[in-house]
Amino acid sequence: MTGEAEGRRRPPVVGMVGAGQLARMTCQAAIGLGVGFRVLAGSARDSAAQVCADVQVGDYTRLEDLLAFASGCDVVTFDHEHVPGQHLAELERAVAVRPGAAALRHAQDKLAMRERLTALGVPCPRYAPVSDLAGVTGFAARSGWPVVLKAVSGGYDGRGVWICETADEAAEVLGHGVVVFAEEHIEFDRELAVLAARSPHGQAAVYPVVQTVQRDGICHEVIAPAPWLAVRQAREAQRLALGLAAELDVTGLLAVELFESRGEGMLLVNELAMRPHNSGHWTIEGATTSQFEQHLRAVLDLPLGAPHAVAPQVVMANVFGGPDPGVYGRYLHVMAADPGVKVHLYGKQVRPGRKIGHVTVAGDPALGDQLRERAGRAARYLGTGED
Amino acid sequence: MTGEAEGRRRPPVVGMVGAGQLARMTCQAAIGLGVGFRVLAGSARDSAAQVCADVQVGDYTRLEDLLAFASGCDVVTFDHEHVPGQHLAELERAVAVRPGAAALRHAQDKLAMRERLTALGVPCPRYAPVSDLAGVTGFAARSGWPVVLKAVSGGYDGRGVWICETADEAAEVLGHGVVVFAEEHIEFDRELAVLAARSPHGQAAVYPVVQTVQRDGICHEVIAPAPWLAVRQAREAQRLALGLAAELDVTGLLAVELFESRGEGMLLVNELAMRPHNSGHWTIEGATTSQFEQHLRAVLDLPLGAPHAVAPQVVMANVFGGPDPGVYGRYLHVMAADPGVKVHLYGKQVRPGRKIGHVTVAGDPALGDQLRERAGRAARYLGTGED
Repeated sequence: MTGEAEGRRRPPVVGMVGAGQLARMTCQAAIGLGVGFRVLAGSARDSAAQVCADVQVGDYTRLEDLLAFASGCDVVTFDHEHVPGQHLAELERAVAVRPGAAALRHAQDKLAMRERLTALGVPCPRYAPVSDLAGVTGFAARSGWPVVLKAVSGGYDGRGVWICETADEAAEVLGHGVVVFAEEHIEFDRELAVLAARSPHGQAAVYPVVQTVQRDGICHEVIAPAPWLAVRQAREAQRLALGLAAELDVTGLLAVELFESRGEGMLLVNELAMRPHNSGHWTIEGATTSQFEQHLRAVLDLPLGAPHAVAPQVVMANVFGGPDPGVYGRYLHVMAADPGVKVHLYGKQVRPGRKIGHVTVAGDPALGDQLRERAGRAARYLGTGED
Repeated sequence: MTGEAEGRRRPPVVGMVGAGQLARMTCQAAIGLGVGFRVLAGSARDSAAQVCADVQVGDYTRLEDLLAFASGCDVVTFDHEHVPGQHLAELERAVAVRPGAAALRHAQDKLAMRERLTALGVPCPRYAPVSDLAGVTGFAARSGWPVVLKAVSGGYDGRGVWICETADEAAEVLGHGVVVFAEEHIEFDRELAVLAARSPHGQAAVYPVVQTVQRDGICHEVIAPAPWLAVRQAREAQRLALGLAAELDVTGLLAVELFESRGEGMLLVNELAMRPHNSGHWTIEGATTSQFEQHLRAVLDLPLGAPHAVAPQVVMANVFGGPDPGVYGRYLHVMAADPGVKVHLYGKQVRPGRKIGHVTVAGDPALGDQLRERAGRAARYLGTGED
């Protein structure tokens, strides 16, 4: 049997570096599609490692662990952006890596992302590389306080972002020794996100634009589609995501986080991610093709699935742990109170403030469905026992 | 920590005896709910064993294998009806078994099922125990030819059912040495199925009634809800399923297969199953709560999920293998031709006529959606490469 004929008989194997909840939910999608799925986990207790049939425990910062993991995978992809760039380049010599190192750099290095987006004429907050306090105060003299200092790499869920009201606060951040750059603080009206998928052969699909509700830089709630968003703005955001996916040669998913300033009618790019994204969890129940299935289809160069919403509105709320870890005792009350709520738990140890799951509800606000209230209450009660 | 408090912290573990596609799809649902899930597989190559993180290989006809499997499970349930009744009774002394042995007997022993349903006044085809040809011809003298001979136990997907046109054909079936009973051959207009779930604390939920399209006793297609079914008939079928679930003390799912004879305005019970059922695969995308999640919730005595359909119509078509096993080559064409089709593959070796997966499409026939055509084409092409 030739390699090609054999390839048509056996399912392809996707390897995902990282074993958090994104890998866990991708695992569910892989089971449905019947494709092989392997994770590189830091520990056998990781969220995805608990449920995946093919787990390698290893260290994604070690090239030999990455290469051993990749052996036997048809494609390697990621549930986070933290694999060192030089390892990615090595890995690409051994296996198909999607997204590739050159694309992924723009999700790993926020300064490189800003520079590339600016070169492409994409609206962003003003920014500047800074190496000392004089750089920060100089930037503040042009853009005003507060100044946002952002770690060039390694940040997520609000970590690596500091909003500095004064030079003293900036000095303290600089004292951490993290490589940062300065960014204008945007007085936005709300935050939006748009998720596109692109495959190696260049097919692309884009999901409806959603509103994300963040607290302290952490996503708490996603409303799909974004309520009352002008059609023109929605199309602009979708075109932006599709255009960026093509320009950056993304393979797999691209999530674009946006600031909306209604007064100026402007959308500014806040962040990029190239993996399944918290702003897309609603697609599991809410879209014809979930973001997790879409990511697999894209990295396998399979035709993409329809990204359309299947309900007039879908609301997702993240579940954060509280002081009482007895989440499985609260399960029952959440399910009894609302038989329509979809509960997703990630198998994580419950710690106060830790994201341990999410809930989703779908319905029609025009028919009186109080979706945000339902999702918020279920998430809050599940996490903390507070009604 | 008390046992109860500990139970609220750690997820419960459901053990499923059998590792076919039903266990595989239940595994996906368990990952979402964050509950532990273990399968007892005949082989590590079984459909669910390929994807489940917690697999025990063993023989479900051996009590010691069943007891070893049950150790560490909070609840044991099934993806088939073939565990010997005396083992079930033993197992119940060690662990919560859902459905219990007394209920499951009615899905294991078709003659016992007929007798119980008749005692409950539930309309069924006429039937009689038969031990020899004289018994069959005597039954035919009352009910006419053809006579259906059914294996009392062990049959599925058309196996264990023989439609005999003559005494000679019946004699041949009796020659197999299988314990059978005789049943009237029903000239039905179509087949329906209705799926209910019931939990130990007595809560129940019922899905919309569906039409099943069978060939040679094997389900090929499911249309949800059953087109043009009179509301009165649908309610009758749903009440029947809920009533039977309560009467038989079913915990978990109960699938009731029905014959519809429109002339007589009659619904007759054909078969019962107490597990996720092929007639409920449409619920994965088509209902708020999939049958697999519902089964887990029911056997864990959690509140049941909403069973409502989320689209005006959903069609599921089974994928049967053809002579060319290159299913992963055909994948691409099916996905490219119809981005809205949901493909589910079971990881099975492709053999001609073997059920290796299913496809689902959802939409609105009133808007011109040709759902049966789309599902049928995708399933046919994926299985055999025929357009």
